[in-house]
Amino acid sequence: MSSANIPATQSALIFEKYGGPLEVRQVSVPQPQENELLVKIEYSGICHSDLHTWEGDFEYASICPLIGGHEGAGTVVTIGSKVKGWNIGDRAGIKLINANCLNCEYCKTGHEPLCDHIQNYGIDRHGTFQEYLTIRDIDAIKVSNDTNLAAAAPVLCGGVTAYKSLKATNVKPGQIVVLTGAGGGLGSFGIQYAKAMGMRVVAVDHISKEDHCRNLGAEWFVDAFDTPDIVAHIRKLTNGGAHGVVSFAAAKKPMEYALEYVRKRGTVVFVGLPKDGTIPLDTLSLICNEITVKGSIVGSRMDVDEAIDFITRGIVHVPIELVKLEDVPSVYQRMKDGKVTSRVVVDFSMR
Amino acid sequence: MSSANIPATQSALIFEKYGGPLEVRQVSVPQPQENELLVKIEYSGICHSDLHTWEGDFEYASICPLIGGHEGAGTVVTIGSKVKGWNIGDRAGIKLINANCLNCEYCKTGHEPLCDHIQNYGIDRHGTFQEYLTIRDIDAIKVSNDTNLAAAAPVLCGGVTAYKSLKATNVKPGQIVVLTGAGGGLGSFGIQYAKAMGMRVVAVDHISKEDHCRNLGAEWFVDAFDTPDIVAHIRKLTNGGAHGVVSFAAAKKPMEYALEYVRKRGTVVFVGLPKDGTIPLDTLSLICNEITVKGSIVGSRMDVDEAIDFITRGIVHVPIELVKLEDVPSVYQRMKDGKVTSRVVVDFSMR
Amino acid sequence: MSSANIPATQSALIFEKYGGPLEVRQVSVPQPQENELLVKIEYSGICHSDLHTWEGDFEYASICPLIGGHEGAGTVVTIGSKVKGWNIGDRAGIKLINANCLNCEYCKTGHEPLCDHIQNYGIDRHGTFQEYLTIRDIDAIKVSNDTNLAAAAPVLCGGVTAYKSLKATNVKPGQIVVLTGAGGGLGSFGIQYAKAMGMRVVAVDHISKEDHCRNLGAEWFVDAFDTPDIVAHIRKLTNGGAHGVVSFAAAKKPMEYALEYVRKRGTVVFVGLPKDGTIPLDTLSLICNEITVKGSIVGSRMDVDEAIDFITRGIVHVPIELVKLEDVPSVYQRMKDGKVTSRVVVDFSMR
Amino acid sequence: MSSANIPATQSALIFEKYGGPLEVRQVSVPQPQENELLVKIEYSGICHSDLHTWEGDFEYASICPLIGGHEGAGTVVTIGSKVKGWNIGDRAGIKLINANCLNCEYCKTGHEPLCDHIQNYGIDRHGTFQEYLTIRDIDAIKVSNDTNLAAAAPVLCGGVTAYKSLKATNVKPGQIVVLTGAGGGLGSFGIQYAKAMGMRVVAVDHISKEDHCRNLGAEWFVDAFDTPDIVAHIRKLTNGGAHGVVSFAAAKKPMEYALEYVRKRGTVVFVGLPKDGTIPLDTLSLICNEITVKGSIVGSRMDVDEAIDFITRGIVHVPIELVKLEDVPSVYQRMKDGKVTSRVVVDFSMR
Repeated sequence: MSSANIPATQSALIFEKYGGPLEVRQVSVPQPQENELLVKIEYSGICHSDLHTWEGDFEYASICPLIGGHEGAGTVVTIGSKVKGWNIGDRAGIKLINANCLNCEYCKTGHEPLCDHIQNYGIDRHGTFQEYLTIRDIDAIKVSNDTNLAAAAPVLCGGVTAYKSLKATNVKPGQIVVLTGAGGGLGSFGIQYAKAMGMRVVAVDHISKEDHCRNLGAEWFVDAFDTPDIVAHIRKLTNGGAHGVVSFAAAKKPMEYALEYVRKRGTVVFVGLPKDGTIPLDTLSLICNEITVKGSIVGSRMDVDEAIDFITRGIVHVPIELVKLEDVPSVYQRMKDGKVTSRVVVDFSMR
Repeated sequence: MSSANIPATQSALIFEKYGGPLEVRQVSVPQPQENELLVKIEYSGICHSDLHTWEGDFEYASICPLIGGHEGAGTVVTIGSKVKGWNIGDRAGIKLINANCLNCEYCKTGHEPLCDHIQNYGIDRHGTFQEYLTIRDIDAIKVSNDTNLAAAAPVLCGGVTAYKSLKATNVKPGQIVVLTGAGGGLGSFGIQYAKAMGMRVVAVDHISKEDHCRNLGAEWFVDAFDTPDIVAHIRKLTNGGAHGVVSFAAAKKPMEYALEYVRKRGTVVFVGLPKDGTIPLDTLSLICNEITVKGSIVGSRMDVDEAIDFITRGIVHVPIELVKLEDVPSVYQRMKDGKVTSRVVVDFSMR
Repeated sequence: MSSANIPATQSALIFEKYGGPLEVRQVSVPQPQENELLVKIEYSGICHSDLHTWEGDFEYASICPLIGGHEGAGTVVTIGSKVKGWNIGDRAGIKLINANCLNCEYCKTGHEPLCDHIQNYGIDRHGTFQEYLTIRDIDAIKVSNDTNLAAAAPVLCGGVTAYKSLKATNVKPGQIVVLTGAGGGLGSFGIQYAKAMGMRVVAVDHISKEDHCRNLGAEWFVDAFDTPDIVAHIRKLTNGGAHGVVSFAAAKKPMEYALEYVRKRGTVVFVGLPKDGTIPLDTLSLICNEITVKGSIVGSRMDVDEAIDFITRGIVHVPIELVKLEDVPSVYQRMKDGKVTSRVVVDFSMR
Repeated sequence: MSSANIPATQSALIFEKYGGPLEVRQVSVPQPQENELLVKIEYSGICHSDLHTWEGDFEYASICPLIGGHEGAGTVVTIGSKVKGWNIGDRAGIKLINANCLNCEYCKTGHEPLCDHIQNYGIDRHGTFQEYLTIRDIDAIKVSNDTNLAAAAPVLCGGVTAYKSLKATNVKPGQIVVLTGAGGGLGSFGIQYAKAMGMRVVAVDHISKEDHCRNLGAEWFVDAFDTPDIVAHIRKLTNGGAHGVVSFAAAKKPMEYALEYVRKRGTVVFVGLPKDGTIPLDTLSLICNEITVKGSIVGSRMDVDEAIDFITRGIVHVPIELVKLEDVPSVYQRMKDGKVTSRVVVDFSMR
């Protein structure tokens, strides 16, 4: 079943070689299979991973030519003959991960991002930088009509990744979490979700981000670059170390320091993906203080549902900047220059 | 209150400088304070930490001259005037940690080994290599009359440390745990406790320990020194990596490898105390596989109670070798030569 | 794809009205859809629920005429065109629950037995008392070639239900669990799984079941009908109450008593389905002793995988009695007479 | 050590028979033992349990004559010779439970309210309705100078009981909790703590409490007495039932209903102490929906520290009414008449 007026061709942002021109072209609108939806994309978040993919950093895993994007939100316009639980006109979210096997130990227990058989939109499969996209029914995220759709888009990767990493800290309401890279894309979501979860936030970032972080809800701000003995400073601030740390900053030094911000029996969660992320681990300190160190990746479908619900309720709101599809290349340039503080979202209705 | 016949002096093994002579001398029998017990030691385990303390490796934390030993088991012969819950003739265990503050966040939640105010028998306070010893009432461990007292002694540090580290893995019955250094003092307990907890054990150690490990209950044995690509081997054996790993081996290489023996979402617990334990941590792998890395130290009073109960029930039995107090120096020498496979226990009734 | 020699018709045990004749008839062999397997059933456990369904106790939920049975184990003989991860010749288990929606909060988190959209073999869909049966690919359980297939069959409902209820108790290795109805079908599995999980078992049942329970591994046996003040007796035996209780017995009195067998902070799990299961709950005692009371139903796919693995490893083995399909009615009669102590399994190779 | 000017006698509110006159008399100021503090009480909350104790409802456990009160907050004026970690001038909280044994399985794991050997201020030991009171050093709660001491007093029993019961629900931030009796003393704290923990609150109480509940942060209000089919109403409101329910209301009907407000896999916590609390439990529904039912009592020392911290930070603030010690009898009368909506606190500086 289809709604009327689905065109044969559509606009898509495509590149033919890594780092090469990013051009908006007319391509065919894909046809959904019997267990798939065709979604008309209205908004698509622009994630740092999109930049990395275009630059070829994930060459071992990505395809080329490629239509990028993996934070899509829109409306269902066609449903395959065997689709259950979806109707034309429903709002749907498209997240990075799809096509998991449903049958391994991770799929069976709600940890499907760890399935060996997943595909990733905008990396090894054409993504959300196009007007229409097909998705397996059970991979799409139900989005309510009450949800701010533009605000929901960047939650589908960035927001849920921050949210899930906070859950992984096991920090309880009233306890303290340190967020490194707190002023960035993930970190900004991190501050808001932490606050919504009752945690107290120490934001660590460049001094230029202080107002941004405090406005989002950070109780303390620590200058990541200009604080003498930052470890001692944070341990004092938190009366012996924080209960949890989330390392959004993906550079080596902040990752090393992150291990020391935590109190005895505390938890450090790494989530920001480093290019070269091998850091020294002092196991003696780990043992004597019973520290836990964990990795956390993007969330499961359930994690996404939960993360979106905070948006729907208006509890989490991170500033977004709306741009046209044609603007993506210039946004990439600003990302490289470190000049993006808000989360940038393509608005397909802008011309 | 005292039982009759407590002598004024007693034998104790003492050293006056680190690495210096270890001599059995006559020293005064201590007097318990009003909230203390006087325990007549019948057995005292000899732990690698005793050797390290004597050698001065913990000089920053230890006292000298020192009577070592921290795995004592015996009988209460005197109780202070305000002691509650103990009677003359009760059997008592003496463990490393005592004198915790009862008032910090760790003491209040049953994690007293992390209290900042603890004392350690045989390190910063005279220990169990003497016939009589005083201990605060609530620090002593109740040992039932049904318990094999000689077998219980080494559980008070070695056994409980192994037991608690296994609990920290969160490995469930039927799942697989890899134990490095499985044939050593901690590791031998580790195999037995893991089996009692329903876990399946991959023992990793020198080939000479294979029979020992298999006899204790290891389902698989892996030669730590002579297995080509040991990581791939263990990952294949365990169908993608074990659910948990406990690193008893305290050398750098096995500690590095331990991080790779584990499957996605698995847990690696470090417990064997390295001299120089800074190892490289690949955070990218940690993140993408959602690995947890933890430290674990000696157990709480509750952990000790539980660990002893397995001994009382006869479920855990690790071979022990009984020696005289005068034999401790030669046992230290054998430890240094790597020639101790069983757990060695001083039997104070041997002359 | 199909293996050769699939007949057009097959034998099936069918009834046309509740409580009416149970007859072996020739019916058509079903055809798998594109995402389904056709499984040749080799063994099918006979569960009390089969009896209840036939008697019409689940009339509100069951269909009639009906081919019963929901503990099937056999071999894949045909696979639909879109099936992934299965090959002709693979061994497959068929469990009660199937056709869950994959999309609700329970399906997304590995608790699919709670999905609102499930179907149940042998209740609202023809079950495993036939030689061939179709099943959606992801609903079938992979069974290894090393597994005793006849022993695995009753695990697919009875075994996994017992196993999961034990997990729900949160009883740790070395702690004590009381099992009511320990000598019955679920209880017998319960004793074996509890032992494999390191728990200590108090078996409660009719005195005639004592040897059976002890042989399966119960450490204590308590006569359910002839013990004066059974509550006080069990509380004394367990030094203040057990850490957990699983109520397999589905009658009112044992269910009431079960609430009192547990120590402070302990957990009581109800799993045996009562006809009239409304019992008095003393909330004052619940509060003052911080007791937890829980319900537990059949397991998820992951639970089944785990439960079968204990069978494959030979750790759990409950006596089974093999019968012909034609014998099911007489087995039902023996069940009604309380004369079945082992688990009864239809062996389709018996003629 | 003592601060100057401790008088020999003091005012105390005392009764000599259950239900008899409550009189302010001059009694001796107690002397602390060597491990005790003498605390000058500045505020003492008035709890429903005080009324019940005076009326003789706990006759089996209480003493008479009695000075009631168990929510005291004040300043340390004398410390015994062996007290550690306290100084003259420190602020201290006095909670119901004290004198736990430090040695049982509950004391060892931070669940000391379940210890068999506890004493209870204002029940079996003179309480906080006097100007000076002695307390064992480790039983007193450290209160910071930044804390509103009057607001902290009722947290020492009422507040922490509500807080701990919410933790027991395992409801996560963003999920929904139903609170029965939400407008009462415990319930008012419950709304505020639930909100601080990120939960969404359905408040259930008499319609006269609606504004009060909404002002404290309830997202929904349900009239407990006048809602047709209240169960269906709440299940619809919460899209299938809440994730958790806390039963503060201690009457039979609301306790029965509480069991039905919860969704599959949800948790119902009973905390309000009923006089006659035996209610029917439908185990079939419990099993099929995998419901958890739990009891929860007053908190541990750690729970109290956490609960007070929310007060110190100004996150939780429940209206309080300050009265004189002489006013307690009239407050009891208002409690009996159901005319107390705020939490009433004795201010010892009022004359």
